[in-house]
Amino acid sequence: MLRGNELIRLLFDEICQFPILDTHSHINPLSPAALTFEDLLGYHYFTELAHSSGMPKAAIEGEKDPLARTHLILNYAKRFNNTIQFEWLEDIARNFLGFMGEQITAEDADKLWTLAERKMSQPDWASQVLRGSRVEKIFLTNDFDDPLSGFDTSIYVPCLRVDDLVFRLHQTETRTRLARCSTIEPGDYAHLQKAIHHLFQHFSAHQAKACAISLPPDFSPQPVSRQAMDQALRANPADEAQAAILSQGVFWMIVEACAAWKWPMDLMIGVNRKVYPEGVHQGQDLFDQRTSLIQYASLFNAFPQVNFCVSVLTSTQNQELASYSWIFPNVITHGHWWYSNVPALIHRDCQLRLQAVPHVKQLGYYSDAYKLEFILPKYNMYRQVLARLLAEDFILERGWSERQAIELARQILRGNASRIFQLES
Amino acid sequence: MLRGNELIRLLFDEICQFPILDTHSHINPLSPAALTFEDLLGYHYFTELAHSSGMPKAAIEGEKDPLARTHLILNYAKRFNNTIQFEWLEDIARNFLGFMGEQITAEDADKLWTLAERKMSQPDWASQVLRGSRVEKIFLTNDFDDPLSGFDTSIYVPCLRVDDLVFRLHQTETRTRLARCSTIEPGDYAHLQKAIHHLFQHFSAHQAKACAISLPPDFSPQPVSRQAMDQALRANPADEAQAAILSQGVFWMIVEACAAWKWPMDLMIGVNRKVYPEGVHQGQDLFDQRTSLIQYASLFNAFPQVNFCVSVLTSTQNQELASYSWIFPNVITHGHWWYSNVPALIHRDCQLRLQAVPHVKQLGYYSDAYKLEFILPKYNMYRQVLARLLAEDFILERGWSERQAIELARQILRGNASRIFQLES
Amino acid sequence: MLRGNELIRLLFDEICQFPILDTHSHINPLSPAALTFEDLLGYHYFTELAHSSGMPKAAIEGEKDPLARTHLILNYAKRFNNTIQFEWLEDIARNFLGFMGEQITAEDADKLWTLAERKMSQPDWASQVLRGSRVEKIFLTNDFDDPLSGFDTSIYVPCLRVDDLVFRLHQTETRTRLARCSTIEPGDYAHLQKAIHHLFQHFSAHQAKACAISLPPDFSPQPVSRQAMDQALRANPADEAQAAILSQGVFWMIVEACAAWKWPMDLMIGVNRKVYPEGVHQGQDLFDQRTSLIQYASLFNAFPQVNFCVSVLTSTQNQELASYSWIFPNVITHGHWWYSNVPALIHRDCQLRLQAVPHVKQLGYYSDAYKLEFILPKYNMYRQVLARLLAEDFILERGWSERQAIELARQILRGNASRIFQLES
Repeated sequence: MLRGNELIRLLFDEICQFPILDTHSHINPLSPAALTFEDLLGYHYFTELAHSSGMPKAAIEGEKDPLARTHLILNYAKRFNNTIQFEWLEDIARNFLGFMGEQITAEDADKLWTLAERKMSQPDWASQVLRGSRVEKIFLTNDFDDPLSGFDTSIYVPCLRVDDLVFRLHQTETRTRLARCSTIEPGDYAHLQKAIHHLFQHFSAHQAKACAISLPPDFSPQPVSRQAMDQALRANPADEAQAAILSQGVFWMIVEACAAWKWPMDLMIGVNRKVYPEGVHQGQDLFDQRTSLIQYASLFNAFPQVNFCVSVLTSTQNQELASYSWIFPNVITHGHWWYSNVPALIHRDCQLRLQAVPHVKQLGYYSDAYKLEFILPKYNMYRQVLARLLAEDFILERGWSERQAIELARQILRGNASRIFQLES
Repeated sequence: MLRGNELIRLLFDEICQFPILDTHSHINPLSPAALTFEDLLGYHYFTELAHSSGMPKAAIEGEKDPLARTHLILNYAKRFNNTIQFEWLEDIARNFLGFMGEQITAEDADKLWTLAERKMSQPDWASQVLRGSRVEKIFLTNDFDDPLSGFDTSIYVPCLRVDDLVFRLHQTETRTRLARCSTIEPGDYAHLQKAIHHLFQHFSAHQAKACAISLPPDFSPQPVSRQAMDQALRANPADEAQAAILSQGVFWMIVEACAAWKWPMDLMIGVNRKVYPEGVHQGQDLFDQRTSLIQYASLFNAFPQVNFCVSVLTSTQNQELASYSWIFPNVITHGHWWYSNVPALIHRDCQLRLQAVPHVKQLGYYSDAYKLEFILPKYNMYRQVLARLLAEDFILERGWSERQAIELARQILRGNASRIFQLES
Repeated sequence: MLRGNELIRLLFDEICQFPILDTHSHINPLSPAALTFEDLLGYHYFTELAHSSGMPKAAIEGEKDPLARTHLILNYAKRFNNTIQFEWLEDIARNFLGFMGEQITAEDADKLWTLAERKMSQPDWASQVLRGSRVEKIFLTNDFDDPLSGFDTSIYVPCLRVDDLVFRLHQTETRTRLARCSTIEPGDYAHLQKAIHHLFQHFSAHQAKACAISLPPDFSPQPVSRQAMDQALRANPADEAQAAILSQGVFWMIVEACAAWKWPMDLMIGVNRKVYPEGVHQGQDLFDQRTSLIQYASLFNAFPQVNFCVSVLTSTQNQELASYSWIFPNVITHGHWWYSNVPALIHRDCQLRLQAVPHVKQLGYYSDAYKLEFILPKYNMYRQVLARLLAEDFILERGWSERQAIELARQILRGNASRIFQLES
């Protein structure tokens, strides 16, 4: 029998064969792949790590010329080239751009720029990346007023993102956007409900498969009465107490719509926005570890027919996620999100889920990518951890066969996504 | 010198020789072993995992015929056969029932039923399981009004479970039970104290060795004045504030009795009951990770003469447990409880304890079993982790001899239980 | 290519060559090394572990004769010789004292005493230990009114410890000490500010490089108005609300001084003092895991020019530390503190930092030692973990060269300390 590293390599190779069903990303389907090397290097992970390493925000955001920006940011790369995020970039350079170096340094800027230009200027570049990464479907993050037109929904699966509706409906701008796209003025409970159903209808007509939201650590969903909602919808936009009631009510109403339309709901729990307001774009958010899934008990109990695909921001909350998913039929573990999307934490979190959560309830991974090129290195990072866990915990420790281990991987990488998000229909 | 896996196997075999002192279980001493295969499969771990995997509660709890139930539940087994809990069942089938298959599937239902019937119908089945598992003593969980008769207390050690007294004494039913079994009407502080001492006397006369309670994450023990207790005992059962005062007062009074009777007290910290009220029987409880042992500082300080054997529900709280046990002479680490009783978490939690807590203060493991058959697979799961830690951290990394490592294991598996619970006396 | 254990040994040997820049200790520079074996064994780790294992506090603290105390404490060693702390003592005995035994037992008391006497009576003993440990510089912990004279500040680097100022300035004693050493009566905001700047001037003149404070889990820094500070400085010392305002104000004022003097500030977050007031000296403090770095968001935002070198007390908070350091340019990860200074936790915490925090922002380790002899075994414990992580995660998993891995170690063990604390200047 194969042991240790050979076994891990074999399993890794096998599970890399599965076409990818990527259930959460920020891909723009109208421009899904990078257009220049700077489109890769401009990913917030690199700008925020460069900034964290001492690069002034003004230098990062002031320079508009993409080649000059490439030079500027790579000048700081040697300060954070230990991070796993930087390795994603190196993987892309090697796997997609033909870069032959061992590590990317500031000296490689022009070479990488030229290599990227040669590839990315090819008209079918996005298709090449999709094929090279074996991506079958990838979920989007769509604003509620996205027209959802101009792309192939059999590959790019729309997903209704509702952060604006839930947390900013007290703002005139959001309300105007909702009224415009739904043609319904959401001035009271009944009209708001109609407007929301209009959105679900629109998204459903464009093959959307889920609704998604990110939530702060102190959020705790509760139903709101019709009267309280009517009052909150009439309140002054500056009234924070009424805005909070409105958030609760809209959230609950959206989950009711998920129930009605038989959609799963993605809950991405734990992020505080703008903790570091002077940070670079998308590099300002952090968290408070003091949060609990017990805040969602009312929700999970009230909607047994809705599948909640839950991402947690911290590894400390992973035991809660595993245990709640072990007990609640409608709680699904979903990927390894953001600050927990690091091999050290994926290993710990995935290990517990594999040992304690029914495998049919585990959605293994999603890329969260903004550009297609990042899907492959991120998935490979995850698949490397998964292969190790399958080899060590299941085959060597528990005596599973390689075949069984590979089937388990297939279930959590494809089977569950396909079933839970109804991707065959 | 042996290395790696061979060394782990050697240590595992050695520590499996120690007769088991199992310091916490839910065994019914009048019917300690399973009577049918369904008695195994009906363990809440399997019913809740089946339910979590999609089996309706009505299907699980509606079917009363045990063979039919076996078929029903095993139909869902393929959805959660990755879990370590399901492996316990497979271990039992292989080790006790003569099952020869690799994995249990729905097709094995009749075969397992028949195999089990053949074994369990033997009049000395419970003794066979005890012997086969090398169980020397096993603690029970006894209601305060349990007559404690009809079983051998040299094997089945009574343990006074006080959840009802602490959290439900405001209810008439509990008060009636207490009055009946103690022949004292607990209408005021003095009479309640007498009634409680009556219980300790009764349990002590039947060789009970400890008092135990499970506690919610927000519980923080504090003394209550005699007057406040008198008032709380006279209050309306529906008065929640008075009920909370009563809980505090009864808890403190019970710890005083532990001090008087020189009993250790088992604190099982962190469970919220009925978080999922529509869950199957015993599959409704979860937790809030936001809890701290600092809530128990007053208690640990007030009773230096009482040994508190502490179980925590989450691995995130394990560092608190290790550190509090490192500092407080009367805080003992106790096993790996429920949602933390999974190899991934046992490994992390046990590793820290072995490195940071005096070994004389570590009670390594208990089974928490409802049927004797589960003791062996659970202990083997723990012993496998322990053998790995001893091999890797102590022998290979720190240069301990095998003999030293085995003595360390003996201490935390037997020596401490024997001393702390006075099992020789 | 070397693999596994050989590779770890090679890396360990290499990184042990770097001279140590120890950025936090409690060394008394006027008596830096132990004078007797009891000076080693009297370290609070051993007295508290002996007490936790059953040794009465009165026995530990009542006996004044150091040889008798050595016998007394070693009598309890067999109860906690599994702990990593006890291994530090064994390492010292073997590496510095010429002890040849495998483990230290009670029988070794006289022998160790004599061996220690022979070494420690040599007039250059402290220098021998410094050289043998390759210590280049070691930071002290100095009271604000420390005269800072009589020692070589090129080796012993002063560090202004401000716990007394921040948490006890409402007490007359502290105010008198401040007035005496600064010659300024801190009766209002302006005079307090002057007095604090006087301290910075004094410390700066003696080559101090940082300011340090330990903080309770519920502390959350906020600015205080000049008027509120004036009022708090005039308040009754017993007025706890005013004392809390004073703490906030003094803390903020000290950080302003750090900004003005261009000093980093060490924040040691999470300790509750005197949780176990009957514990031995320095063995009374514990913690509440429910704390968050979000409490420091205002501070990190208000002082972008100050480097905050952050230690967290619990491993559960390590993900917050890694993530805050990944985002905030002025948050530096600093060592592995106290209850987290155990290989099991160092491995987890360091692994995440190495994968997710720019390497230029990681201060790998400090000894926290009270006597020079402890620097080497503590650093070796850390370096062993680091060598393993470099071998497994960077060389074997990510394909780094040994040279690259060693340079990464050099950066986090020396380069960053040198730059952040301006040790060349």
